[in-house]
Amino acid sequence: MKRIDSVKNERIKQWKKLHSRKGREKANQFLIEGFHLIEEALKSNVVVQHILLEEGREWPAEWKMDDAERIEVHITVLKELSDTMTPQGVIAICELPNDGEIDNRNGCFLLVDRIQDPGNLGTIIRTADAAGMTGVILGEGCVDPFNSKVLRSSQGSLFHLPIYHGPLTEWVRAFKEVKVPILGTALQNASSYTAIEPLESFALIVGNEGEGVDQDLLKQTNQNVYIPIYGKAESLNVAIATGILLYHLRR
Amino acid sequence: MKRIDSVKNERIKQWKKLHSRKGREKANQFLIEGFHLIEEALKSNVVVQHILLEEGREWPAEWKMDDAERIEVHITVLKELSDTMTPQGVIAICELPNDGEIDNRNGCFLLVDRIQDPGNLGTIIRTADAAGMTGVILGEGCVDPFNSKVLRSSQGSLFHLPIYHGPLTEWVRAFKEVKVPILGTALQNASSYTAIEPLESFALIVGNEGEGVDQDLLKQTNQNVYIPIYGKAESLNVAIATGILLYHLRR
Repeated sequence: MKRIDSVKNERIKQWKKLHSRKGREKANQFLIEGFHLIEEALKSNVVVQHILLEEGREWPAEWKMDDAERIEVHITVLKELSDTMTPQGVIAICELPNDGEIDNRNGCFLLVDRIQDPGNLGTIIRTADAAGMTGVILGEGCVDPFNSKVLRSSQGSLFHLPIYHGPLTEWVRAFKEVKVPILGTALQNASSYTAIEPLESFALIVGNEGEGVDQDLLKQTNQNVYIPIYGKAESLNVAIATGILLYHLRR
Repeated sequence: MKRIDSVKNERIKQWKKLHSRKGREKANQFLIEGFHLIEEALKSNVVVQHILLEEGREWPAEWKMDDAERIEVHITVLKELSDTMTPQGVIAICELPNDGEIDNRNGCFLLVDRIQDPGNLGTIIRTADAAGMTGVILGEGCVDPFNSKVLRSSQGSLFHLPIYHGPLTEWVRAFKEVKVPILGTALQNASSYTAIEPLESFALIVGNEGEGVDQDLLKQTNQNVYIPIYGKAESLNVAIATGILLYHLRR
Protein backbone atom coordinates (compact mmCIF):
# COMPACT_ATOMS: atom_id res chain seq x y z
CA MET A 1 0.00 0.00 0.00
CA LYS A 2 1.31 3.42 -0.97
CA ARG A 3 1.36 6.13 1.64
CA ILE A 4 1.50 9.94 1.50
CA ASP A 5 2.02 11.96 4.65
CA SER A 6 3.13 15.34 3.38
CA VAL A 7 0.92 18.07 1.98
CA LYS A 8 3.99 19.13 0.00
CA ASN A 9 3.92 15.92 -2.00
CA GLU A 10 3.94 16.80 -5.70
CA ARG A 11 0.82 14.72 -6.50
CA ILE A 12 -1.15 16.31 -3.67
CA LYS A 13 -0.23 19.73 -5.06
CA GLN A 14 -1.49 18.66 -8.50
CA TRP A 15 -4.73 17.19 -7.17
CA LYS A 16 -5.46 20.33 -5.19
CA LYS A 17 -5.81 22.11 -8.51
CA LEU A 18 -8.89 19.96 -9.25
CA HIS A 19 -10.97 22.35 -7.14
CA SER A 20 -11.08 24.75 -10.08
CA ARG A 21 -12.82 24.07 -13.39
CA LYS A 22 -9.66 25.07 -15.22
CA GLY A 23 -7.61 22.60 -13.17
CA ARG A 24 -10.11 19.81 -13.86
CA GLU A 25 -10.15 20.43 -17.59
CA LYS A 26 -6.36 20.65 -17.82
CA ALA A 27 -5.82 17.38 -15.92
CA ASN A 28 -8.95 15.71 -17.30
CA GLN A 29 -9.75 14.65 -13.73
CA PHE A 30 -12.13 15.52 -10.93
CA LEU A 31 -12.11 14.96 -7.19
CA ILE A 32 -14.85 13.49 -4.99
CA GLU A 33 -15.08 13.20 -1.23
CA GLY A 34 -16.85 10.89 1.19
CA PHE A 35 -17.73 7.20 1.33
CA HIS A 36 -21.19 7.52 -0.24
CA LEU A 37 -20.11 9.49 -3.33
CA ILE A 38 -17.09 7.27 -3.96
CA GLU A 39 -19.22 4.16 -3.65
CA GLU A 40 -21.65 5.56 -6.22
CA ALA A 41 -18.73 6.39 -8.54
CA LEU A 42 -17.26 2.88 -8.18
CA LYS A 43 -20.63 1.34 -9.08
CA SER A 44 -20.89 3.54 -12.19
CA ASN A 45 -18.94 3.76 -15.44
CA VAL A 46 -16.71 6.48 -14.03
CA VAL A 47 -12.99 5.58 -13.96
CA VAL A 48 -11.80 5.97 -10.36
CA GLN A 49 -8.02 6.39 -10.65
CA HIS A 50 -6.79 6.95 -7.08
CA ILE A 51 -8.40 6.61 -3.65
CA LEU A 52 -6.90 8.32 -0.61
CA LEU A 53 -7.98 6.87 2.74
CA GLU A 54 -7.19 8.34 6.14
CA GLU A 55 -4.78 6.15 8.12
CA GLY A 56 -6.51 3.91 10.65
CA ARG A 57 -9.74 3.62 8.59
CA GLU A 58 -10.94 0.41 6.96
CA TRP A 59 -11.35 0.00 3.20
CA PRO A 60 -15.05 -0.85 2.74
CA ALA A 61 -15.24 -4.56 1.92
CA GLU A 62 -17.91 -4.04 -0.77
CA TRP A 63 -15.84 -1.62 -2.83
CA LYS A 64 -14.54 -3.02 -6.12
CA MET A 65 -11.33 -1.08 -6.59
CA ASP A 66 -9.37 -3.27 -9.03
CA ASP A 67 -8.32 -0.42 -11.29
CA ALA A 68 -7.82 2.25 -8.64
CA GLU A 69 -4.56 3.02 -6.91
CA ARG A 70 -5.08 2.82 -3.15
CA ILE A 71 -3.15 5.27 -1.00
CA GLU A 72 -3.16 5.68 2.76
CA VAL A 73 -2.74 9.27 3.86
CA HIS A 74 -2.29 11.32 7.00
CA ILE A 75 -5.38 13.39 7.92
CA THR A 76 -3.51 16.63 7.13
CA VAL A 77 -3.36 15.47 3.50
CA LEU A 78 -7.13 14.99 3.41
CA LYS A 79 -7.62 18.39 5.03
CA GLU A 80 -5.38 19.92 2.37
CA LEU A 81 -7.45 18.36 -0.44
CA SER A 82 -10.89 18.77 1.12
CA ASP A 83 -13.06 21.81 0.58
CA THR A 84 -15.28 21.10 3.57
CA MET A 85 -14.58 21.97 7.18
CA THR A 86 -14.72 18.35 8.31
CA PRO A 87 -12.97 15.96 5.91
CA GLN A 88 -14.85 12.70 5.58
CA GLY A 89 -11.92 10.29 5.71
CA VAL A 90 -11.68 9.50 2.03
CA ILE A 91 -11.11 11.28 -1.28
CA ALA A 92 -10.96 9.89 -4.80
CA ILE A 93 -9.50 11.21 -8.04
CA CYS A 94 -11.51 10.21 -11.12
CA GLU A 95 -11.22 10.67 -14.85
CA LEU A 96 -13.57 13.26 -16.34
CA PRO A 97 -16.06 11.25 -18.41
CA ASN A 98 -16.69 12.05 -22.07
CA ASP A 99 -20.22 12.77 -23.18
CA GLY A 100 -21.60 9.54 -24.60
CA GLU A 101 -23.77 9.27 -27.70
CA ILE A 102 -27.54 9.28 -27.29
CA ASP A 103 -28.80 6.01 -28.78
CA ASN A 104 -32.41 6.97 -28.74
CA ARG A 105 -33.75 10.47 -28.45
CA ASN A 106 -37.24 9.07 -27.84
CA GLY A 107 -37.01 9.40 -24.07
CA CYS A 108 -37.49 11.90 -21.28
CA PHE A 109 -34.79 14.56 -21.19
CA LEU A 110 -34.19 17.58 -19.00
CA LEU A 111 -32.46 20.53 -20.69
CA VAL A 112 -30.77 22.95 -18.30
CA ASP A 113 -30.19 26.53 -19.45
CA ARG A 114 -27.52 28.56 -17.58
CA ILE A 115 -28.11 27.35 -14.01
CA GLN A 116 -25.52 29.17 -11.88
CA ASP A 117 -25.98 27.88 -8.35
CA PRO A 118 -24.11 24.61 -7.67
CA GLY A 119 -26.68 23.51 -5.05
CA ASN A 120 -29.49 24.06 -7.54
CA LEU A 121 -27.77 22.10 -10.30
CA GLY A 122 -26.95 19.19 -7.96
CA THR A 123 -30.53 19.06 -6.67
CA ILE A 124 -31.90 19.27 -10.22
CA ILE A 125 -29.76 16.29 -11.30
CA ARG A 126 -30.82 14.32 -8.19
CA THR A 127 -34.46 15.12 -8.94
CA ALA A 128 -34.12 14.14 -12.61
CA ASP A 129 -32.62 10.84 -11.47
CA ALA A 130 -35.46 10.22 -9.00
CA ALA A 131 -38.03 11.02 -11.69
CA GLY A 132 -36.41 8.37 -13.92
CA MET A 133 -35.28 10.72 -16.66
CA THR A 134 -33.34 9.28 -19.60
CA GLY A 135 -30.69 11.99 -19.42
CA VAL A 136 -29.83 15.55 -18.48
CA ILE A 137 -28.42 18.02 -21.01
CA LEU A 138 -26.44 21.00 -19.76
CA GLY A 139 -26.41 24.00 -22.07
CA GLU A 140 -23.57 26.49 -22.32
CA GLY A 141 -23.21 28.76 -19.28
CA CYS A 142 -24.18 26.18 -16.64
CA VAL A 143 -22.03 25.77 -13.56
CA ASP A 144 -19.60 22.84 -13.99
CA PRO A 145 -21.27 19.60 -12.81
CA PHE A 146 -17.91 18.39 -11.43
CA ASN A 147 -17.77 21.32 -9.01
CA SER A 148 -17.65 19.76 -5.53
CA LYS A 149 -20.86 21.46 -4.36
CA VAL A 150 -22.78 20.14 -7.35
CA LEU A 151 -21.42 16.64 -6.68
CA ARG A 152 -22.39 16.86 -3.00
CA SER A 153 -25.93 18.08 -3.58
CA SER A 154 -26.48 15.59 -6.42
CA GLN A 155 -25.89 12.86 -3.79
CA GLY A 156 -24.31 10.62 -6.42
CA SER A 157 -27.08 11.02 -9.01
CA LEU A 158 -24.48 12.52 -11.38
CA PHE A 159 -23.19 8.92 -11.67
CA HIS A 160 -26.65 7.41 -12.21
CA LEU A 161 -27.82 8.96 -15.44
CA PRO A 162 -26.06 10.29 -18.53
CA ILE A 163 -25.15 13.97 -18.58
CA TYR A 164 -24.67 15.63 -21.97
CA HIS A 165 -23.36 19.06 -22.93
CA GLY A 166 -23.79 21.45 -25.83
CA PRO A 167 -25.74 24.42 -27.18
CA LEU A 168 -29.42 23.88 -26.34
CA THR A 169 -30.61 25.28 -29.68
CA GLU A 170 -28.86 22.37 -31.40
CA TRP A 171 -30.34 19.86 -28.96
CA VAL A 172 -33.80 21.29 -29.48
CA ARG A 173 -33.36 20.83 -33.24
CA ALA A 174 -32.25 17.22 -32.71
CA PHE A 175 -35.31 16.43 -30.59
CA LYS A 176 -37.60 18.08 -33.13
CA GLU A 177 -36.21 15.81 -35.86
CA VAL A 178 -37.50 12.77 -33.98
CA LYS A 179 -40.75 14.53 -33.02
CA VAL A 180 -40.12 14.57 -29.26
CA PRO A 181 -42.33 17.34 -27.79
CA ILE A 182 -40.29 20.23 -26.41
CA LEU A 183 -41.65 22.07 -23.41
CA GLY A 184 -40.25 25.37 -22.18
CA THR A 185 -40.86 27.01 -18.82
CA ALA A 186 -41.91 30.65 -18.93
CA LEU A 187 -43.95 33.22 -17.04
CA GLN A 188 -45.57 34.80 -20.10
CA ASN A 189 -47.31 33.34 -23.17
CA ALA A 190 -47.48 30.02 -21.40
CA SER A 191 -50.13 27.52 -20.25
CA SER A 192 -50.51 26.26 -16.72
CA TYR A 193 -48.59 22.99 -16.39
CA THR A 194 -51.74 21.39 -14.95
CA ALA A 195 -53.21 21.42 -18.47
CA ILE A 196 -50.43 19.14 -19.76
CA GLU A 197 -51.13 15.42 -19.79
CA PRO A 198 -48.37 12.97 -18.83
CA LEU A 199 -46.04 12.28 -21.77
CA GLU A 200 -44.15 9.15 -22.86
CA SER A 201 -41.29 11.20 -24.21
CA PHE A 202 -40.48 14.87 -23.88
CA ALA A 203 -37.68 17.41 -23.53
CA LEU A 204 -38.30 19.94 -20.76
CA ILE A 205 -36.19 23.11 -20.57
CA VAL A 206 -35.58 24.82 -17.20
CA GLY A 207 -33.59 28.02 -16.92
CA ASN A 208 -31.41 30.49 -15.12
CA GLU A 209 -32.29 31.51 -11.54
CA GLY A 210 -32.86 35.17 -12.35
CA GLU A 211 -33.74 35.24 -16.03
CA GLY A 212 -35.43 31.92 -16.68
CA VAL A 213 -35.10 30.18 -20.04
CA ASP A 214 -33.55 32.18 -22.88
CA GLN A 215 -36.21 33.95 -24.97
CA ASP A 216 -34.89 32.62 -28.28
CA LEU A 217 -35.05 29.06 -26.96
CA LEU A 218 -38.64 29.61 -25.82
CA LYS A 219 -39.57 30.47 -29.41
CA GLN A 220 -38.34 27.05 -30.58
CA THR A 221 -40.44 24.95 -28.19
CA ASN A 222 -43.73 23.19 -28.95
CA GLN A 223 -45.34 24.60 -25.83
CA ASN A 224 -44.37 26.76 -22.86
CA VAL A 225 -45.73 26.13 -19.38
CA TYR A 226 -45.78 27.95 -16.05
CA ILE A 227 -46.50 26.90 -12.48
CA PRO A 228 -49.22 29.02 -10.84
CA ILE A 229 -48.27 31.01 -7.75
CA TYR A 230 -51.19 30.90 -5.29
CA GLY A 231 -49.55 33.02 -2.56
CA LYS A 232 -47.32 36.10 -2.37
CA ALA A 233 -44.00 34.55 -3.42
CA GLU A 234 -42.62 36.06 -6.60
CA SER A 235 -41.47 32.73 -7.96
CA LEU A 236 -40.44 29.19 -7.11
CA ASN A 237 -36.85 28.04 -6.77
CA VAL A 238 -35.84 26.45 -10.11
CA ALA A 239 -35.07 23.04 -8.57
CA ILE A 240 -38.50 22.99 -6.90
CA ALA A 241 -40.16 23.94 -10.19
CA THR A 242 -38.23 21.14 -11.92
CA GLY A 243 -39.47 18.62 -9.33
CA ILE A 244 -43.10 19.70 -9.69
CA LEU A 245 -42.98 19.58 -13.50
CA LEU A 246 -41.07 16.30 -13.87
CA TYR A 247 -43.33 14.48 -11.41
CA HIS A 248 -46.39 15.90 -13.10
CA LEU A 249 -45.19 14.74 -16.52
CA ARG A 250 -44.13 11.30 -15.24
CA ARG A 251 -47.15 10.51 -13.05
CA MET B 1 -29.95 61.65 9.91
CA LYS B 2 -27.89 59.63 12.36
CA ARG B 3 -24.55 58.34 11.24
CA ILE B 4 -22.25 55.56 12.45
CA ASP B 5 -18.75 55.21 11.06
CA SER B 6 -17.00 53.02 13.57
CA VAL B 7 -17.24 49.26 13.89
CA LYS B 8 -16.43 49.81 17.57
CA ASN B 9 -19.71 51.64 18.11
CA GLU B 10 -21.54 50.00 21.03
CA ARG B 11 -24.77 49.44 19.06
CA ILE B 12 -22.91 47.79 16.18
CA LYS B 13 -21.27 45.42 18.69
CA GLN B 14 -24.71 44.54 20.08
CA TRP B 15 -26.29 44.02 16.64
CA LYS B 16 -23.44 41.77 15.59
CA LYS B 17 -24.64 39.32 18.23
CA LEU B 18 -27.86 38.86 16.24
CA HIS B 19 -26.03 36.37 14.01
CA SER B 20 -26.50 33.72 16.71
CA ARG B 21 -29.84 32.30 17.81
CA LYS B 22 -28.93 33.01 21.44
CA GLY B 23 -28.16 36.62 20.59
CA ARG B 24 -31.47 37.01 18.74
CA GLU B 25 -33.50 35.54 21.56
CA LYS B 26 -31.75 37.62 24.21
CA ALA B 27 -32.26 40.90 22.32
CA ASN B 28 -35.64 39.86 20.86
CA GLN B 29 -34.36 41.10 17.51
CA PHE B 30 -33.15 39.75 14.19
CA LEU B 31 -31.09 41.17 11.35
CA ILE B 32 -31.86 41.20 7.62
CA GLU B 33 -29.75 42.27 4.70
CA GLY B 34 -30.44 43.54 1.20
CA PHE B 35 -33.01 45.79 -0.44
CA HIS B 36 -35.45 43.04 -1.44
CA LEU B 37 -35.71 41.39 2.00
CA ILE B 38 -36.05 44.73 3.80
CA GLU B 39 -38.76 45.85 1.39
CA GLU B 40 -40.70 42.63 2.07
CA ALA B 41 -40.29 43.17 5.82
CA LEU B 42 -41.52 46.77 5.57
CA LYS B 43 -44.61 45.63 3.66
CA SER B 44 -45.38 43.00 6.33
CA ASN B 45 -46.40 43.17 9.97
CA VAL B 46 -42.80 42.88 11.11
CA VAL B 47 -41.57 45.83 13.18
CA VAL B 48 -38.48 47.23 11.46
CA GLN B 49 -36.63 49.15 14.18
CA HIS B 50 -33.43 50.42 12.54
CA ILE B 51 -32.21 50.61 8.95
CA LEU B 52 -28.51 51.08 8.17
CA LEU B 53 -27.77 52.40 4.68
CA GLU B 54 -24.33 52.68 3.12
CA GLU B 55 -23.27 56.30 2.64
CA GLY B 56 -23.83 57.57 -0.88
CA ARG B 57 -26.83 55.30 -1.53
CA GLU B 58 -30.40 56.52 -1.97
CA TRP B 59 -33.23 55.57 0.38
CA PRO B 60 -35.78 53.84 -1.88
CA ALA B 61 -38.66 56.27 -2.41
CA GLU B 62 -41.31 53.57 -2.03
CA TRP B 63 -40.19 52.45 1.44
CA LYS B 64 -42.54 53.41 4.27
CA MET B 65 -40.14 53.79 7.18
CA ASP B 66 -42.13 55.99 9.59
CA ASP B 67 -41.35 53.89 12.64
CA ALA B 68 -37.79 52.89 11.76
CA GLU B 69 -34.68 54.76 12.81
CA ARG B 70 -32.65 55.61 9.71
CA ILE B 71 -28.87 55.53 10.04
CA GLU B 72 -26.22 56.22 7.44
CA VAL B 73 -23.13 54.09 7.86
CA HIS B 74 -19.66 53.67 6.41
CA ILE B 75 -19.24 50.50 4.33
CA THR B 76 -16.91 49.01 6.96
CA VAL B 77 -19.86 49.00 9.37
CA LEU B 78 -21.98 47.02 6.90
CA LYS B 79 -19.10 44.62 6.32
CA GLU B 80 -18.82 44.13 10.07
CA LEU B 81 -22.53 43.29 10.38
CA SER B 82 -22.88 41.29 7.15
CA ASP B 83 -22.39 37.56 6.98
CA THR B 84 -21.95 37.55 3.21
CA MET B 85 -18.77 38.30 1.29
CA THR B 86 -20.33 41.19 -0.60
CA PRO B 87 -22.51 43.42 1.62
CA GLN B 88 -25.61 44.61 -0.21
CA GLY B 89 -25.61 48.22 0.92
CA VAL B 90 -28.35 47.98 3.53
CA ILE B 91 -29.10 46.10 6.75
CA ALA B 92 -32.13 46.31 9.03
CA ILE B 93 -32.71 45.33 12.64
CA CYS B 94 -36.23 44.03 13.31
CA GLU B 95 -38.21 42.88 16.32
CA LEU B 96 -38.68 39.11 16.56
CA PRO B 97 -42.39 38.54 15.94
CA ASN B 98 -44.53 36.59 18.39
CA ASP B 99 -46.46 33.59 17.13
CA GLY B 100 -49.98 34.80 16.41
CA GLU B 101 -53.13 32.84 17.18
CA ILE B 102 -54.61 30.64 14.48
CA ASP B 103 -58.16 31.94 13.87
CA ASN B 104 -59.26 29.02 11.80
CA ARG B 105 -57.56 25.65 11.66
CA ASN B 106 -59.63 24.73 8.60
CA GLY B 107 -56.92 25.62 6.15
CA CYS B 108 -53.83 24.21 4.49
CA PHE B 109 -50.90 23.90 6.84
CA LEU B 110 -47.37 22.60 6.45
CA LEU B 111 -45.85 21.00 9.56
CA VAL B 112 -42.04 20.86 9.57
CA ASP B 113 -40.32 18.23 11.71
CA ARG B 114 -36.63 18.86 12.61
CA ILE B 115 -35.37 20.33 9.35
CA GLN B 116 -31.68 21.13 9.95
CA ASP B 117 -30.42 22.74 6.77
CA PRO B 118 -31.12 26.51 6.58
CA GLY B 119 -31.31 26.46 2.77
CA ASN B 120 -33.89 23.67 2.89
CA LEU B 121 -36.05 25.46 5.48
CA GLY B 122 -35.94 28.73 3.55
CA THR B 123 -36.86 27.00 0.29
CA ILE B 124 -39.65 25.07 2.04
CA ILE B 125 -41.15 28.31 3.38
CA ARG B 126 -40.87 29.95 -0.06
CA THR B 127 -42.57 26.93 -1.65
CA ALA B 128 -45.35 26.89 0.97
CA ASP B 129 -45.94 30.58 0.24
CA ALA B 130 -46.06 29.97 -3.52
CA ALA B 131 -48.50 27.09 -3.01
CA GLY B 132 -50.78 29.45 -1.08
CA MET B 133 -50.57 27.66 2.26
CA THR B 134 -52.43 29.15 5.23
CA GLY B 135 -49.42 28.79 7.52
CA VAL B 136 -46.23 26.90 8.33
CA ILE B 137 -45.70 25.24 11.70
CA LEU B 138 -42.15 24.57 12.86
CA GLY B 139 -41.77 21.73 15.36
CA GLU B 140 -39.09 21.53 18.01
CA GLY B 141 -35.60 20.88 16.66
CA CYS B 142 -35.93 22.91 13.44
CA VAL B 143 -33.21 25.36 12.49
CA ASP B 144 -34.14 28.92 13.57
CA PRO B 145 -36.14 30.62 10.77
CA PHE B 146 -34.44 33.93 11.62
CA ASN B 147 -31.04 32.49 10.75
CA SER B 148 -29.70 34.65 7.90
CA LYS B 149 -29.41 31.72 5.46
CA VAL B 150 -33.04 30.75 6.03
CA LEU B 151 -34.11 34.36 5.48
CA ARG B 152 -32.07 34.58 2.27
CA SER B 153 -33.34 31.36 0.75
CA SER B 154 -36.94 32.13 1.77
CA GLN B 155 -36.65 35.24 -0.48
CA GLY B 156 -38.95 37.15 1.84
CA SER B 157 -41.66 34.48 2.06
CA LEU B 158 -41.07 34.32 5.82
CA PHE B 159 -42.83 37.70 5.90
CA HIS B 160 -45.72 36.59 3.68
CA LEU B 161 -47.40 33.85 5.67
CA PRO B 162 -47.73 33.11 9.37
CA ILE B 163 -45.08 30.91 10.98
CA TYR B 164 -46.02 29.06 14.18
CA HIS B 165 -43.91 27.05 16.61
CA GLY B 166 -44.51 24.23 19.07
CA PRO B 167 -44.46 20.45 19.56
CA LEU B 168 -46.00 18.85 16.48
CA THR B 169 -47.84 16.19 18.49
CA GLU B 170 -49.90 18.99 20.07
CA TRP B 171 -50.55 20.60 16.71
CA VAL B 172 -51.65 17.28 15.24
CA ARG B 173 -54.11 16.89 18.12
CA ALA B 174 -55.46 20.40 17.49
CA PHE B 175 -56.02 19.69 13.79
CA LYS B 176 -57.71 16.40 14.61
CA GLU B 177 -60.19 18.22 16.85
CA VAL B 178 -61.45 20.18 13.87
CA LYS B 179 -61.29 17.15 11.58
CA VAL B 180 -58.56 18.49 9.27
CA PRO B 181 -56.95 15.47 7.52
CA ILE B 182 -53.35 14.93 8.60
CA LEU B 183 -50.92 13.53 6.04
CA GLY B 184 -47.48 12.24 6.95
CA THR B 185 -44.61 11.55 4.57
CA ALA B 186 -42.95 8.15 4.95
CA LEU B 187 -41.13 5.49 2.96
CA GLN B 188 -42.87 2.49 4.54
CA ASN B 189 -46.53 1.71 5.26
CA ALA B 190 -47.51 4.56 3.00
CA SER B 191 -49.55 5.11 -0.18
CA SER B 192 -48.25 6.76 -3.32
CA TYR B 193 -49.13 10.48 -3.19
CA THR B 194 -50.66 10.12 -6.66
CA ALA B 195 -53.59 8.27 -5.05
CA ILE B 196 -54.50 11.34 -2.95
CA GLU B 197 -57.13 13.66 -4.35
CA PRO B 198 -56.71 17.42 -3.94
CA LEU B 199 -57.93 18.59 -0.52
CA GLU B 200 -59.66 21.78 0.63
CA SER B 201 -57.92 21.64 3.99
CA PHE B 202 -55.08 19.47 5.24
CA ALA B 203 -52.00 19.38 7.45
CA LEU B 204 -48.98 17.86 5.72
CA ILE B 205 -45.93 16.83 7.77
CA VAL B 206 -42.45 16.81 6.20
CA GLY B 207 -39.38 15.73 8.12
CA ASN B 208 -35.70 15.68 8.87
CA GLU B 209 -33.20 15.35 5.99
CA GLY B 210 -31.75 12.04 7.19
CA GLU B 211 -34.49 10.47 9.30
CA GLY B 212 -37.71 11.75 7.79
CA VAL B 213 -40.77 12.36 9.96
CA ASP B 214 -40.64 11.05 13.54
CA GLN B 215 -42.14 7.54 13.81
CA ASP B 216 -44.46 8.47 16.71
CA LEU B 217 -45.85 11.37 14.70
CA LEU B 218 -46.48 9.09 11.71
CA LYS B 219 -48.69 6.93 13.95
CA GLN B 220 -50.94 9.91 14.66
CA THR B 221 -51.67 10.84 11.05
CA ASN B 222 -54.76 9.94 9.02
CA GLN B 223 -52.65 8.73 6.12
CA ASN B 224 -48.99 8.51 5.17
CA VAL B 225 -47.79 9.07 1.62
CA TYR B 226 -44.56 8.57 -0.32
CA ILE B 227 -43.26 9.87 -3.64
CA PRO B 228 -42.20 7.05 -6.00
CA ILE B 229 -38.55 6.97 -7.09
CA TYR B 230 -38.42 5.92 -10.76
CA GLY B 231 -34.61 6.07 -11.11
CA LYS B 232 -31.57 5.18 -9.00
CA ALA B 233 -31.63 8.08 -6.54
CA GLU B 234 -32.11 6.96 -2.95
CA SER B 235 -34.47 9.78 -2.12
CA LEU B 236 -35.60 13.27 -3.03
CA ASN B 237 -34.41 16.41 -1.29
CA VAL B 238 -37.04 17.33 1.34
CA ALA B 239 -37.77 20.75 -0.19
CA ILE B 240 -38.33 19.14 -3.60
CA ALA B 241 -40.64 16.55 -2.02
CA THR B 242 -42.55 19.36 -0.29
CA GLY B 243 -43.02 21.15 -3.61
CA ILE B 244 -44.29 18.04 -5.40
CA LEU B 245 -46.75 17.20 -2.61
CA LEU B 246 -48.08 20.71 -1.99
CA TYR B 247 -48.69 21.35 -5.69
CA HIS B 248 -50.34 17.97 -6.05
CA LEU B 249 -52.67 18.68 -3.11
CA ARG B 250 -53.45 22.22 -4.28
CA ARG B 251 -53.97 21.58 -7.97
